[in-house]
Amino acid sequence: MVRRIHNFSAGPAALPLPVLEEVQNDLVSYKGEGLSVMEMSHRGKTFDGIIKSAESLMKEIMGIPDGYKVIFMQGGASLQFATVPLNLLPENKFADYINTGSWSTKAIQEARKLGKKFNVIASSEDKNFSYIPDNFKVDKDAAYLHITSNNTIFGTQWQKFPDTGKIPLVCDMSSDFNCRKFDVSKFGMIYAGAQKNMGPSGVTIVIIKEELMNASPENIPTMCSYKVIGGKDSLYNTPPTFGIYIIKLVLEWMKSVGGLSAIEKINREKADMLYSAIDGTGFYKGTVEKNSRSLMNVPFRLPSEELEKQFIAEAQKNDIIGVKGHRSVGGIRASIYNAVPVDSVKALVDFMRDFESKNG
Amino acid sequence: MVRRIHNFSAGPAALPLPVLEEVQNDLVSYKGEGLSVMEMSHRGKTFDGIIKSAESLMKEIMGIPDGYKVIFMQGGASLQFATVPLNLLPENKFADYINTGSWSTKAIQEARKLGKKFNVIASSEDKNFSYIPDNFKVDKDAAYLHITSNNTIFGTQWQKFPDTGKIPLVCDMSSDFNCRKFDVSKFGMIYAGAQKNMGPSGVTIVIIKEELMNASPENIPTMCSYKVIGGKDSLYNTPPTFGIYIIKLVLEWMKSVGGLSAIEKINREKADMLYSAIDGTGFYKGTVEKNSRSLMNVPFRLPSEELEKQFIAEAQKNDIIGVKGHRSVGGIRASIYNAVPVDSVKALVDFMRDFESKNG
Repeated sequence: MVRRIHNFSAGPAALPLPVLEEVQNDLVSYKGEGLSVMEMSHRGKTFDGIIKSAESLMKEIMGIPDGYKVIFMQGGASLQFATVPLNLLPENKFADYINTGSWSTKAIQEARKLGKKFNVIASSEDKNFSYIPDNFKVDKDAAYLHITSNNTIFGTQWQKFPDTGKIPLVCDMSSDFNCRKFDVSKFGMIYAGAQKNMGPSGVTIVIIKEELMNASPENIPTMCSYKVIGGKDSLYNTPPTFGIYIIKLVLEWMKSVGGLSAIEKINREKADMLYSAIDGTGFYKGTVEKNSRSLMNVPFRLPSEELEKQFIAEAQKNDIIGVKGHRSVGGIRASIYNAVPVDSVKALVDFMRDFESKNG
Repeated sequence: MVRRIHNFSAGPAALPLPVLEEVQNDLVSYKGEGLSVMEMSHRGKTFDGIIKSAESLMKEIMGIPDGYKVIFMQGGASLQFATVPLNLLPENKFADYINTGSWSTKAIQEARKLGKKFNVIASSEDKNFSYIPDNFKVDKDAAYLHITSNNTIFGTQWQKFPDTGKIPLVCDMSSDFNCRKFDVSKFGMIYAGAQKNMGPSGVTIVIIKEELMNASPENIPTMCSYKVIGGKDSLYNTPPTFGIYIIKLVLEWMKSVGGLSAIEKINREKADMLYSAIDGTGFYKGTVEKNSRSLMNVPFRLPSEELEKQFIAEAQKNDIIGVKGHRSVGGIRASIYNAVPVDSVKALVDFMRDFESKNG
């Protein structure tokens, strides 16, 4: 059997094994057609079927209501930090932003760089981004409110999304996209780099209300225009075809295991297991306020940086990888995305117990 | 043995079979490491080795001189149509463009859309883009001259690049990148979507003189800044890791078959074979002036549209696909990129003879 390790990487991250096996099987000749998906015209019948399936599966699994468009773009969340204000923030308007960590900060910096007007109406920077603010008021004239649903680096996550009424809620969901059920109709726009829960890096998923999509101005780069790329069903130019194909397979896998409810249940089980292991000792210490803890990224500390180094090194010897905290915060971080198996979390928890008994 | 057909698709296009086989072999567990390249952190040791190899192989194979940077970006040539003027064309300057087809036209339209100043100093639109203009004068004050080296749709190709002296020559090489030896030092910047000669769609290769790269202004989208993305060695954010990995394998394949000189020789052999088949009869008719013919995309017509339809349908029955001309020009087009084997061109030529003998 082929070797597989326990992959807690923050992204690009673990993909479902059945998906990888199917990709491998069809790599040289897709369904016996005599060529790889990578070698196919994006305007041919086969790829057209693939991208249409990806769209319709996304709508089905997420319960996306009519009036929303699913778009596959490129450039990651980092390009969306620019495209959101370029498309949705005209010169005579301003937007509201909430700052909950590094990625929110980057989104805000990008709006500033492009000379856009905005207000930061709440921030958790005062406590090193260890919580999600709940005391803020969205301006009734804001073009949109921008939030980051999950903070990969600090391990916080919005537990309940704010109700913004008529103000479009724009959300960067890169690191917890489709980790749980949620009501898409509360959002004006959702965007997510695929490389955590949905596929390989290089595809950005955008879900946008059609009325917002059609508001894109004309004088922005065409490849940044939701109106153009959405209007052409993500085929204005050659899209990242292979990545979209893998997203389609991941969606099929999600459906096969029971959809978002089932995935949320498993994710809660995995997160509970890991947080319990942290909370059950004085040796490990969580860094996030309990009611803001992420289902996806679990940061914690050990009594010393020396022990943390040792932990990371010994974990690797036990086939447990990707647990080093982000360079900006240090410590340990385990990312337990949808495709990380329960057994991998069990292996990590067992390793943690063992490590503590030897070094605690 | 796995089925493989003769793939003349204009892009995404045929990839070398040994590359696909290696990708397949390592898909679930890269070199026995226990995870797919798709699942690896872009900041880990293994991927770092992959992207550094891709860069150094590119430099070696193309003979890229010191003072140039190789950058991997996203968004295809279509995003570069915007990023080139955003980075290299300040408000107080203008650029020169030469229009040789649909893609040049799009590059020009994008500069116009962004409110940039430019002159179209030559065009072959007068004869439906069937030739490359050779009578033009680059303005000594132009910020750059932009050309498209090969016109996928019309099947023309620059045989000799213009000497622009001190004016940076900026070239969209998407559809003939690395099909032949050429002198990189004559260019200020080269860009190319990977999906013809280099890999899957979703990666854009940019080769740029460092002095131009460092001139990027601050007030443009960060993901469009050559200075930022190049300055961070293509790792400002998560790059399209899997595509970059395949580019590295394609470069290794190019080296293994003898580098650019050997590839150019084979490409000339394939093109000669096909153009001879066209010129040798009155049945098939080339659409491009002979001294502007492309080594990569070979368009031709049959006596009637009826026969062209029949040709495409019967070709498919003979495992020959992708030969339908672009919807904007009709007819037949065979794209014979680096990875299309000589045997596939032979199969096409045999089919053409057979088809003519039955219908001529």
